[in-house]
Amino acid sequence: MINKNELKYIQSFVHKKQWAQESVFMVEGPKLMAELLGSDWIIEKIYANVAWADKQTDPSLNIQIVEDFELEKMTQLQKPNQVIALVEKKLYMKPLEFKGKFTLVLDGVQDPGNMGTIIRTADWFGCSQIIISEDSANLYNPKVIQSTMGSFLRVRVASMDIATVMAEANLPIYGALLAGSSLYETKLTSDGFLVIGNESKGIRPEIISMVTQAISIPKFGAAESLNAAVATGIILSHWKSQ
Amino acid sequence: MINKNELKYIQSFVHKKQWAQESVFMVEGPKLMAELLGSDWIIEKIYANVAWADKQTDPSLNIQIVEDFELEKMTQLQKPNQVIALVEKKLYMKPLEFKGKFTLVLDGVQDPGNMGTIIRTADWFGCSQIIISEDSANLYNPKVIQSTMGSFLRVRVASMDIATVMAEANLPIYGALLAGSSLYETKLTSDGFLVIGNESKGIRPEIISMVTQAISIPKFGAAESLNAAVATGIILSHWKSQ
Repeated sequence: MINKNELKYIQSFVHKKQWAQESVFMVEGPKLMAELLGSDWIIEKIYANVAWADKQTDPSLNIQIVEDFELEKMTQLQKPNQVIALVEKKLYMKPLEFKGKFTLVLDGVQDPGNMGTIIRTADWFGCSQIIISEDSANLYNPKVIQSTMGSFLRVRVASMDIATVMAEANLPIYGALLAGSSLYETKLTSDGFLVIGNESKGIRPEIISMVTQAISIPKFGAAESLNAAVATGIILSHWKSQ
Repeated sequence: MINKNELKYIQSFVHKKQWAQESVFMVEGPKLMAELLGSDWIIEKIYANVAWADKQTDPSLNIQIVEDFELEKMTQLQKPNQVIALVEKKLYMKPLEFKGKFTLVLDGVQDPGNMGTIIRTADWFGCSQIIISEDSANLYNPKVIQSTMGSFLRVRVASMDIATVMAEANLPIYGALLAGSSLYETKLTSDGFLVIGNESKGIRPEIISMVTQAISIPKFGAAESLNAAVATGIILSHWKSQ
């Protein structure tokens, strides 16, 4: 059983005011939990049904058994999925390094589903760090976390002043733009930045002016644009296949 | 002003029971409307605020002026966007042809956002037809229509018995699978089928057995899978760039 105040607290994670401020974030489902338990993230509290809890062997886990009807009140998924956990927002102590690395840069990507899918796609292609502008979706939005399908555990995502970071790094800056050299004829270096812009407005002019190589995905039909996550996947795939 | 019954009718389009059965589907926003008005789809009814209606020059449009607070009650978007229309589900009279064409095949793609993004991506790469299994998301789901960003007007989407269609066409069948030849080393023909499977279960075994060339997008990191729309984009991009 869960008490009323705790239930209210969990439910409040649907609001930005809550998930943005708290020192913990919410994770759901056995698949994500299995990955979390194998990682070094610190799990503060677990709410789970008996079926899930019975399978755990680590006695140090702080599990509170709840009924399925309670999970139903707590979940942010369409259907509850056995377990909900509160995880400490990780504090990365080591500063990010850019030299020798290929870093994805999100300039105002605002849809949480897109953000999560981009993190998952970066993980697939072995791109291990993403910096995001402060007006981008928040990593700890439960919708972002869920749509990464666990990739937030492997890809480091940092909210930063992307202009300052890129200016200081002095590496190639690729920008995904509607007008640019054809991706198919562009050779991407193994280190540098790839900037993906906002879903409708694209990359901000002040960031465009920093781009050293504008690249565009050739269009053969009539759609006005590509989805931000799809474009990211196509460019990262080209980066790896060349 | 809109009367109570009409308002209820529009609101009912949030339910599958409604949008699946009706002979019309719902479209929102000035951008999609502009594309629709330039197409041969038949618009049965338009609900719009004065700002939008005042800009129209075609006197044959069946526009009912509504207040912004009414649009707020009618919309399926997060914020209403000036205009909502009911459009007749188009009956394609010409049967689909497959010879000489590259056809996308969706085997149980169930997320409406994914489906819409796939249609938009197909449109970008000039892939003009998609056949979908009967358990895939429905094209006329308002969430699918909105996320196509207008591409449903250019890409023909048909719900069919995909196994029968592919068996009869006798063309190459490419399947996006986790185990297959590397996409980067596969030459895709200009006609044939590309099968994309369900978000979690992939392609059904009976369809896999029909695949003449299994292709997989090489993985460089640790994500378990790619989003269906991202995978579609990467493969279509390769198809066009080779």
